[in-house]
Amino acid sequence: MAQPDTVLVGQKPPMSYVTAVLTHFERGSKQVHIKARGKAITRAVDTAEILRRNFMKNAVINDISIATETVELEGKPRNISAIKITLGKE
Amino acid sequence: MAQPDTVLVGQKPPMSYVTAVLTHFERGSKQVHIKARGKAITRAVDTAEILRRNFMKNAVINDISIATETVELEGKPRNISAIKITLGKE
Repeated sequence: MAQPDTVLVGQKPPMSYVTAVLTHFERGSKQVHIKARGKAITRAVDTAEILRRNFMKNAVINDISIATETVELEGKPRNISAIKITLGKE
Repeated sequence: MAQPDTVLVGQKPPMSYVTAVLTHFERGSKQVHIKARGKAITRAVDTAEILRRNFMKNAVINDISIATETVELEGKPRNISAIKITLGKE
């Protein structure tokens, strides 16, 4: 499901995702996408902000986009909001 | 607290904020800022997406920015994530 250089944010504490993003950069990624849907959107923003503030001062936000995705829930299609935050390095 | 042309998203259902944004545009605003902090961030994204999808097909996202704000909680400063979504018209 995850593309290369993409961290999918779910229900874990934000630090799990901060670590995942850092690992991508340490392995040579130039850009890392942080993606989330529904209630995890807030956690995706927390992940980017904790990273910028405490762990990677040279991180820059290259792009933020929002969208609507359709997911099947109890057999019915439902719309759910999504976010993609693209981080790079200075 | 709210600046002109700014809708602060809190704990109400997203439709309350969709209506507030539409009202700004109907009164002549060229741009409307949707702002939220903490858990309301997801609702701010929902507001923008419901608006674009169902109520204002010519709405465009001019900018999305995220930040960290410091708030006093039980007498102690705490960091909280924030989002600002700037909507315009095509």
